[in-house]
Amino acid sequence: MTEPAQTAKVVFQPSGRRGTFAIGTPLLDAARSLGVYVESVCGGRGICGRCQVAVSEGQFAKEGLTSAADHLAGESEAESRYRSLRPLDPARRLSCQAKILGDLVVDVPTEAQTNRQVVRKRAEARAIEPKSAISLVTVRLDEPSMETPRGDADRLREAVAEKLAADQIALDSILLPKVQTCLRKGGWTVTAAVHRDGQQPAEIVALWPGEHIRAYGLAVDIGSTTIAAHLCDLASGRTVSSAGTSNPQIRFGEDLMSRVSYVQMNPAKLPDLTRTVREAINALVGKLVADVGAERSDVLDAVFVGNPVMHHLFLGIDPVELGGAPFALAVSDALHLKSRDLDLDLNTGANVYMVPCIAGHVGADAAAATLSEAPGKSDEMTLLVDVGTNAEIILGNKDRLLAASSPTGPAFEGAEISSGQRAAPGAIERIRIDRETLEPRFKVIGLDEWSDEDGFADKIDQVGVTGICGSGIIEAVAEMYLCGLITEDGVVNGAMAERTRRIVANGRTFSYLIANEDIEISILQTDIRAIQLAKAALYAGVKLLQDKLGTDRIDRIRLAGAFGSYIDPTYAMVLGLIPDCPLEGISGVGNAAGTGARMALLNTGHRREVEETVRTIEKIETALEPKFQEHFVNAMAFPNKVDPFPNLRNAVALPDRSQATATPGADDGRRRRRRRG
Amino acid sequence: MTEPAQTAKVVFQPSGRRGTFAIGTPLLDAARSLGVYVESVCGGRGICGRCQVAVSEGQFAKEGLTSAADHLAGESEAESRYRSLRPLDPARRLSCQAKILGDLVVDVPTEAQTNRQVVRKRAEARAIEPKSAISLVTVRLDEPSMETPRGDADRLREAVAEKLAADQIALDSILLPKVQTCLRKGGWTVTAAVHRDGQQPAEIVALWPGEHIRAYGLAVDIGSTTIAAHLCDLASGRTVSSAGTSNPQIRFGEDLMSRVSYVQMNPAKLPDLTRTVREAINALVGKLVADVGAERSDVLDAVFVGNPVMHHLFLGIDPVELGGAPFALAVSDALHLKSRDLDLDLNTGANVYMVPCIAGHVGADAAAATLSEAPGKSDEMTLLVDVGTNAEIILGNKDRLLAASSPTGPAFEGAEISSGQRAAPGAIERIRIDRETLEPRFKVIGLDEWSDEDGFADKIDQVGVTGICGSGIIEAVAEMYLCGLITEDGVVNGAMAERTRRIVANGRTFSYLIANEDIEISILQTDIRAIQLAKAALYAGVKLLQDKLGTDRIDRIRLAGAFGSYIDPTYAMVLGLIPDCPLEGISGVGNAAGTGARMALLNTGHRREVEETVRTIEKIETALEPKFQEHFVNAMAFPNKVDPFPNLRNAVALPDRSQATATPGADDGRRRRRRRG
Repeated sequence: MTEPAQTAKVVFQPSGRRGTFAIGTPLLDAARSLGVYVESVCGGRGICGRCQVAVSEGQFAKEGLTSAADHLAGESEAESRYRSLRPLDPARRLSCQAKILGDLVVDVPTEAQTNRQVVRKRAEARAIEPKSAISLVTVRLDEPSMETPRGDADRLREAVAEKLAADQIALDSILLPKVQTCLRKGGWTVTAAVHRDGQQPAEIVALWPGEHIRAYGLAVDIGSTTIAAHLCDLASGRTVSSAGTSNPQIRFGEDLMSRVSYVQMNPAKLPDLTRTVREAINALVGKLVADVGAERSDVLDAVFVGNPVMHHLFLGIDPVELGGAPFALAVSDALHLKSRDLDLDLNTGANVYMVPCIAGHVGADAAAATLSEAPGKSDEMTLLVDVGTNAEIILGNKDRLLAASSPTGPAFEGAEISSGQRAAPGAIERIRIDRETLEPRFKVIGLDEWSDEDGFADKIDQVGVTGICGSGIIEAVAEMYLCGLITEDGVVNGAMAERTRRIVANGRTFSYLIANEDIEISILQTDIRAIQLAKAALYAGVKLLQDKLGTDRIDRIRLAGAFGSYIDPTYAMVLGLIPDCPLEGISGVGNAAGTGARMALLNTGHRREVEETVRTIEKIETALEPKFQEHFVNAMAFPNKVDPFPNLRNAVALPDRSQATATPGADDGRRRRRRRG
Repeated sequence: MTEPAQTAKVVFQPSGRRGTFAIGTPLLDAARSLGVYVESVCGGRGICGRCQVAVSEGQFAKEGLTSAADHLAGESEAESRYRSLRPLDPARRLSCQAKILGDLVVDVPTEAQTNRQVVRKRAEARAIEPKSAISLVTVRLDEPSMETPRGDADRLREAVAEKLAADQIALDSILLPKVQTCLRKGGWTVTAAVHRDGQQPAEIVALWPGEHIRAYGLAVDIGSTTIAAHLCDLASGRTVSSAGTSNPQIRFGEDLMSRVSYVQMNPAKLPDLTRTVREAINALVGKLVADVGAERSDVLDAVFVGNPVMHHLFLGIDPVELGGAPFALAVSDALHLKSRDLDLDLNTGANVYMVPCIAGHVGADAAAATLSEAPGKSDEMTLLVDVGTNAEIILGNKDRLLAASSPTGPAFEGAEISSGQRAAPGAIERIRIDRETLEPRFKVIGLDEWSDEDGFADKIDQVGVTGICGSGIIEAVAEMYLCGLITEDGVVNGAMAERTRRIVANGRTFSYLIANEDIEISILQTDIRAIQLAKAALYAGVKLLQDKLGTDRIDRIRLAGAFGSYIDPTYAMVLGLIPDCPLEGISGVGNAAGTGARMALLNTGHRREVEETVRTIEKIETALEPKFQEHFVNAMAFPNKVDPFPNLRNAVALPDRSQATATPGADDGRRRRRRRG
């Protein structure tokens, strides 16, 4: 017998995050140290049951590593007690109790990942005038008679049409077998849900005996990472419940392009990618309707947005053409579909409206964000940016609107960064570096206290310091620049090692150590390069659109998406991520795509609006524009050499002008309240 | 051990016909003696393999009778040789070889029943101006470019719309995943099948790379007994193949009302009735496309007609409301559906048009027959009759058109008649009784010779004399009346027993013996009563509509359906089945419902026409009309006392005026040629 290893490798699915842990480490701790979010309410006491995980085979085994349940310690007393009291799938373990004995692949079930995500893709408060595609109409029919032998369904269609003063109303054929029983059960009074949407033929899509008053709709933003779904009351326009979940397609590739490659290599697996996202949506719907005590059959309409790859995969369309020039969309116009044709478990007659895509890299999510922020309705020159693996950029005003996509890569999301991770508990999201001592202080997601505040030391063990997320990286690099730790060209200044032990040599480059508690978190030279490439791409895209419009002026900047909502605009400007703009004109707009989806759900006028916008918006393909490369190269420095940045210089002392340290975004308390509100 | 029985009971499915046979009887002979049609080409030599049957468990076993394969003798030499040479399902036996050893339930497979049926529901020759719902449009697209990032599907829709000078064209969502591969495979040239039908949104329903020229449509008449399907070339309007099959719903009830009762008693079985008819249609389509070397995917449009119960069952609608007053149809208007929603295996995008129903007892089949015969387009007063379990009656001209259904019962189809059977080989279909000798001569289906002609005796063993079908019964009763064997009131005249041994006493009534070869075939007093009830119902219905129209005049009579095509109009008039009319104005119009279905398939103008007819036709409910009973009672006699029947009296010597025997329909040779042509 060989000596048992003292450490073991663990991979968490679906994120794919992996690490090496001491034998005996509880899985929950291992997960947290990797920034893998697993819900836990009871503080690891084996009581709440929220931290369930499953030990699975998979990719890990393929790599030649063993993977078996006996690599996990047996049930603890607490776990056995839990199992005796409450239902627990035999294949599941409580991760706070289960200790690592050997190499493992661990599946984090969707429900354990859910809650956290909601925080970052919540429904933004927005009053939307309700004028949805669905009308509930209660009618009373005469009993059938031999004198008037017209079919019950036809008499129903007529009565409903009369009540709505509509010319003609069709009946979803799926209802044909239900009509007679429904009428008889309701004593000849029934409620019909009628779908009317622009040029689409008006149609009865659902039927209830007697009176029925509940009509819900579903608005979903299918992100590559997160799917956010909102349940809305179609009559009042209120969003009654929201939920999010990881996009389970992550199994097939972390980012968009790796999923496209996966389908290209495994064409037979396309249906799996489609099924997996539809199943996740069906699970979310289950949660949403349960939240408000409704039924799936009360969900009568749905709107979906997503980037082109998500849009195509959701529809079962091979996204392979989106993987290379000319990035041809299979379909870009708005679509009207039946939810059942997409295997969605809503009311069987429910319709689906797909918001149109703008171009091969500028999807229905960008179109929905444009609907939400309405740059085309204002005189003000507005820049709308949604940052993901690609940055989708909309620039213009009511006279002219341009759209482009810029290949920022995933650095802003914490990927390709040495200590990077997604926004999850334990991630550093904010950071300040003292201009004199060059010591950092930071804040992690999941804890209110900054690292230099009372209470931090006591509480940090609850979440750990697991990495640095997108907004944290922006602030870290910007602060390093403001402190003179990096030059305008983005080189970590090795000479500063004289002033602080946090500047460390790594071969020919230097890094800055932020924390070294659970794990070491440093900003490496390569991290700064990744950020520079990303921000230069974004900036060059904006600049290109400014060229096309012939203007330097930008009155408003709207930063959409989770990332856009959490970065500090001043830091973004310090880095040259966004062009100069009055600081008061910059704001994070949260999940603008989701808001746009809700608008399209709740008011069909907004559907016509987004269709018109997509028709008229001018699409600029950065890859076709020689000026893009030029702008890109010029935008690598901090802050961009090409611009005077007058607004920024008014707001913050930049290192090349002064060493005075007017910290941007000074009132941290106020900002925190807004962000957590 | 008990002595083996010398006879055994055998039940044939799906017809349910049963009989007792001597041990050792080949199954094929047993089937034929019961009028169960089993195809056989080789004359029982075990060569052709067409007579395959399966021994099954079933209803028989439920009745406590045993049922097992060992009740059948082992394979004959011929059968073993057949099995060694050609594929034969292990569960199948050649019925010409397999001999009965004990009680059995035998399943006659659909293919063994098929051919015979075609004869009786063939496509009538009819030139129909082709203007179908489907247009094939070949377009060439520009390759996609980054300058114009519109989706390929949207550019396709635009190109097709432009070519058709159409405002806007939708795309069946099922095609979304196909568009890009199709375009690339065709080198940017594709052919789209566009569905355009009145107010329906124009839609691309199918797509092929490059050029495609084949577009077929399907027209189906779903009868309670027989399903007849026609494959038509949508471009030329030609019917390229026709096929028929038994309606497998016969398992659930022989006639309409027993199927309705079955569903009422077994609501959970409704999907079985629906599935079974759809499967039969799918099998027919397979046969039709194979006939012409086409693919199922070439079938792009379909039209269905049927009586209200068949219509509802096909659509998956519970027909229970049609089983009792007020006979409320779930739906009567024309329907536009997707074939895939009906589980039909055509092109996945193919549409289905359901011809509208007129009333609870007057279905889409009657509407289609009305389209075919167009009484509403003529000045002439036309009576259109389709006889089945109910007689559907249309009367009128271009000024006014009335419809009714009359409860004839199944007597005209050979049911409820002691020696009655369906029209199948071995059934007596024509009969003449010598006015002097009172001896009958007859013709059976499957043999050209009359019973008194040379060759009959040699050949009759091939088919046997198994019973009497609808047209045979009409002629038998009419001839008996013309010979004075029955009185005007329908009583078999016992006094005639003095003149012929064929008049036989049965208790207090008498019967007439037609044949006694394989089995005894007689016309009993009860048979005559059944015919009287049926013909009185039909006549009373017609009379009621004449009352409503205020006319006695009838210029044309069109007898639709298999029955209507085979009865001799003069005999029908002798019986008082139809009212008096110039004999040259009477004709059988074959499967007028099927012809109407083909018209609706091939020309959308005909769809609007039948919709308009159904809207405007006046529906008369016989059950609500007190006059109906009065007419019914008055119509029991031969020929009806209430009418002078001047045309009939010109054509045939009726017994109450003369004993001279001017035989109606004298030129038998000419009629036979027409019928077999």
